[in-house]
Amino acid sequence: MRITRFLDMSGAIKLGIERNDAQAEILQGELFGDLISTGTLVEIKKRLAPLHPVNIFCIGLNYQDHADETGKSIAKNPIIFMIPTSAVTGPEEAIKLPVCCTRGPEVDYEAELAVIIGKAARDVSEAEALDYVYGYCCANDVSARRWQKHGGGGQFTKGKGFDTFSPLGPVLVTADEIGDPQNLSVRCFVNGELRQDGNTRDMIFPVARLIHLMSQDTTLLPGTVILTGTPSGVGVARKPSQFLADGDQVTISIEHIGELTNPVINAIEQ
Amino acid sequence: MRITRFLDMSGAIKLGIERNDAQAEILQGELFGDLISTGTLVEIKKRLAPLHPVNIFCIGLNYQDHADETGKSIAKNPIIFMIPTSAVTGPEEAIKLPVCCTRGPEVDYEAELAVIIGKAARDVSEAEALDYVYGYCCANDVSARRWQKHGGGGQFTKGKGFDTFSPLGPVLVTADEIGDPQNLSVRCFVNGELRQDGNTRDMIFPVARLIHLMSQDTTLLPGTVILTGTPSGVGVARKPSQFLADGDQVTISIEHIGELTNPVINAIEQ
Repeated sequence: MRITRFLDMSGAIKLGIERNDAQAEILQGELFGDLISTGTLVEIKKRLAPLHPVNIFCIGLNYQDHADETGKSIAKNPIIFMIPTSAVTGPEEAIKLPVCCTRGPEVDYEAELAVIIGKAARDVSEAEALDYVYGYCCANDVSARRWQKHGGGGQFTKGKGFDTFSPLGPVLVTADEIGDPQNLSVRCFVNGELRQDGNTRDMIFPVARLIHLMSQDTTLLPGTVILTGTPSGVGVARKPSQFLADGDQVTISIEHIGELTNPVINAIEQ
Repeated sequence: MRITRFLDMSGAIKLGIERNDAQAEILQGELFGDLISTGTLVEIKKRLAPLHPVNIFCIGLNYQDHADETGKSIAKNPIIFMIPTSAVTGPEEAIKLPVCCTRGPEVDYEAELAVIIGKAARDVSEAEALDYVYGYCCANDVSARRWQKHGGGGQFTKGKGFDTFSPLGPVLVTADEIGDPQNLSVRCFVNGELRQDGNTRDMIFPVARLIHLMSQDTTLLPGTVILTGTPSGVGVARKPSQFLADGDQVTISIEHIGELTNPVINAIEQ
């Protein structure tokens, strides 16, 4: 099932099964609970992020080629950090370049497969881990590189947690439609130019292993989102660096899921 | 107002104004919305964490004496990281020593003033920042030191985010009752022995400055909790180290707020 969360023509927030670019079949109920198809087809006025995450975990350096381009060595355990749920934005919504990025371009894209947990997962084995996955969507782990590196004492939350820095979408594809999450092409385009071209088969910690490790003595609640890391090709590692600028358009494209596109604009001081 | 979230004698979750250790006056409505006192006094069966946080931010090294004891230098910006909301637990609930802490004692206490944001704060000045504070409670930023240092690639989320690692309570004291948050004694006792004895006047980044800096291009949603850092005296910095063990009892005591006490037990593998 390809679940879309959207505004209908009256401006009400709805859940539906995506039927085509413009229409969805209304679902009654809630994500992670019972969802019942009504058979009613309606027009989509505007797509939203497919869910309000409860917690957003991010994984650092989960692709060898990206670890290589940053010059960092791989640890025995995954690098796990969090960003606030306030950072979430939807398809076609603008990524706002923060006013507090005052020292020139530094905002970067990171194409990532997002995993959505559907039922509470605690101390789950790697073999059973995928049973706890409700579905997947595209994510862009937008990162202000100076803030990430220098602005939070080495902790990544500040540089990756600004408003609009966590685009999710365009739909939530349920786990049954994806099957094996370790064979999906993950790409990022900026203004149509291919910048990242990876495949989830190259993850150092595959999804099942991440869930196993992250759930040790820790409950991953329904609605938890895990951003599983990004392949090589990020702007900061290019020679010369290529950061996002006002007027750019970024697309994250993941096989069997779809394309998540966001324009980039300068934030206005409030 | 001293707000308690609790189970009444029927086991229903209620909000109330604390009248004494055993009784509360029932409040109707929701935190951050309209709360109306009903005048009805009921017995408290069991206190709960005073809220379900939306996001939990933690500040590292926010007291000079604690920074000194860790041997770390102070950055220009606060160290900001996050822990998952699944880590929250209430007064008298057990802090569970994780099964995955397999290399001997490493779990530590950190007495901290928790700030609860009451209305959306974005790009707020330091002068106006305290207007966004709904209230305060005691927090224990429980930390598994090996996991914190080595188990997450330098990111603190994993070592501080285990289930039960974020006790909050015993009540939420509204901001009007506290006035100046920078003159509160913050202490930690383990089995009655004083281990930490600080005062919020010694914060490197006071509460108003934290909110100002954290809200740059970032919306702090109502229900956001900020753990504002811990004074010196943590177990890992003592000579020899003194970590928490099965059977211990930890109390965080903050002036004008109260005492948050939690027993410590070994977690059982699930």
